[in-house]
Amino acid sequence: MSHDFDLFIQTAHALADVAGTVIRPYFRSTIGAADKNDASPVTIADRMAERVMRAQLAELHPDHAVLGEEYGLQEGTSRYQWTLDPIDGTRAFITGRPTFGTLISLSHDGTPILGIIDQPVTGERWLGVTGRPTVFRNGLLHRTDFQPVVTRKQPSLSEADLSCTSLEMLEDAPRPTWKALKQQAKRMSWGGDCYAYGLLASGHIDIVAECAMKPWDWAALLPVVEGAGGRVTNWNGESLTADGDGTVLAVGNPALLDAAVTCLRG
Amino acid sequence: MSHDFDLFIQTAHALADVAGTVIRPYFRSTIGAADKNDASPVTIADRMAERVMRAQLAELHPDHAVLGEEYGLQEGTSRYQWTLDPIDGTRAFITGRPTFGTLISLSHDGTPILGIIDQPVTGERWLGVTGRPTVFRNGLLHRTDFQPVVTRKQPSLSEADLSCTSLEMLEDAPRPTWKALKQQAKRMSWGGDCYAYGLLASGHIDIVAECAMKPWDWAALLPVVEGAGGRVTNWNGESLTADGDGTVLAVGNPALLDAAVTCLRG
Repeated sequence: MSHDFDLFIQTAHALADVAGTVIRPYFRSTIGAADKNDASPVTIADRMAERVMRAQLAELHPDHAVLGEEYGLQEGTSRYQWTLDPIDGTRAFITGRPTFGTLISLSHDGTPILGIIDQPVTGERWLGVTGRPTVFRNGLLHRTDFQPVVTRKQPSLSEADLSCTSLEMLEDAPRPTWKALKQQAKRMSWGGDCYAYGLLASGHIDIVAECAMKPWDWAALLPVVEGAGGRVTNWNGESLTADGDGTVLAVGNPALLDAAVTCLRG
Repeated sequence: MSHDFDLFIQTAHALADVAGTVIRPYFRSTIGAADKNDASPVTIADRMAERVMRAQLAELHPDHAVLGEEYGLQEGTSRYQWTLDPIDGTRAFITGRPTFGTLISLSHDGTPILGIIDQPVTGERWLGVTGRPTVFRNGLLHRTDFQPVVTRKQPSLSEADLSCTSLEMLEDAPRPTWKALKQQAKRMSWGGDCYAYGLLASGHIDIVAECAMKPWDWAALLPVVEGAGGRVTNWNGESLTADGDGTVLAVGNPALLDAAVTCLRG
């Protein structure tokens, strides 16, 4: 099956652009965060950004399905589905850290074929497309062009930089085997949400191990990381699925996958 | 005693400017990090930035003492001492996160009277001076002017946003009482280093509790946070001293200090 990637890439950039425009004024503003039923923080920006992305998709691809963190699944009549997480890393957003991100993904028959990780405050954006090299726009340096990025091919787990967003996330893991991985790795850094996967794609982090991840949390990460030469699986080294156990393991060097999975299997 | 703050502020900005110029090209570059004896990561940029700041101080204030993380104490003949940490948050730096910072502080008879937290990639800079309101330059919005910032006056510990750089730091704490604080607070976010104290000064975070902090880690934070209306103490609620136990507690609302110390005293 050949996809009209040029069109879909245009759409994905347009969605990220409009989401960023909506989100930016709310960053570090004093507008309060409401609690959802699951007690995770969510902002007005989150909901507004998903609404404007959905409104664009309704015009551009009315036949595509849309799944968003805030407003659930809207069925389509084609085999394409957009998966949206307007603000991944709401804790980072609420505490003023420019390390949250907007996640946009397109799947075909359930397989992610395009992903964007966008940091709307710094202007950083990673774009991954199946069969193409992942590209990155370095907004921190005020660049407007996209350049290919590749993961770092760290050969040894004992030299690897490991990252995870939070202890609370790991405490919810199906098994406490992350401690073994942490012990084997060179060092661990905390925080990051989707931004950490972008940094992994760019070769600055070797491993990210997380859990309690929903499809809208990981769908966009997969094409970005794999297009940069890495791998994204669950903690058993298997492909991620919508009904999986929520564990996610990303490695910059696919050769590190076995060693990481050995730790995480316990 | 009246200080020539206008001169010292000029010096402090000049130091932060030159440090940033040295540091920026090394951010996300592939130049490897060496390990120091204590196994903490350190980069060429770290050492170079301290050297250029020391060189400037030797010209501008040859009578002042200088204490830096990398090159130790250089005695002076006056009662002023500059305390420098060119890259606070080397893990963040090494993993490509723009949340590390350059810390510059001036003390008089051991009391910090001026502090800068500078993020040289985003261009964010906080400046605190005894008796003046803390000011902030929002480089993320490409602002070049400094505007006053104030801490958030969160009245309740149970509604407070708590932050700490890493689990490893807390595991080294003199006592595991941080768990009680974490349990009482609304939520915890991870990562941040000195940047988290800047965000606290700007009213985005309510409490930071950390430990294993050296004088060059906290000297600059004190004038920034206190000039914005917050308080910085150790985990017993006492003033920080060079020979203290390395614990640091910062609160945006001084009225929260007692409740936080009650948790941390255990």
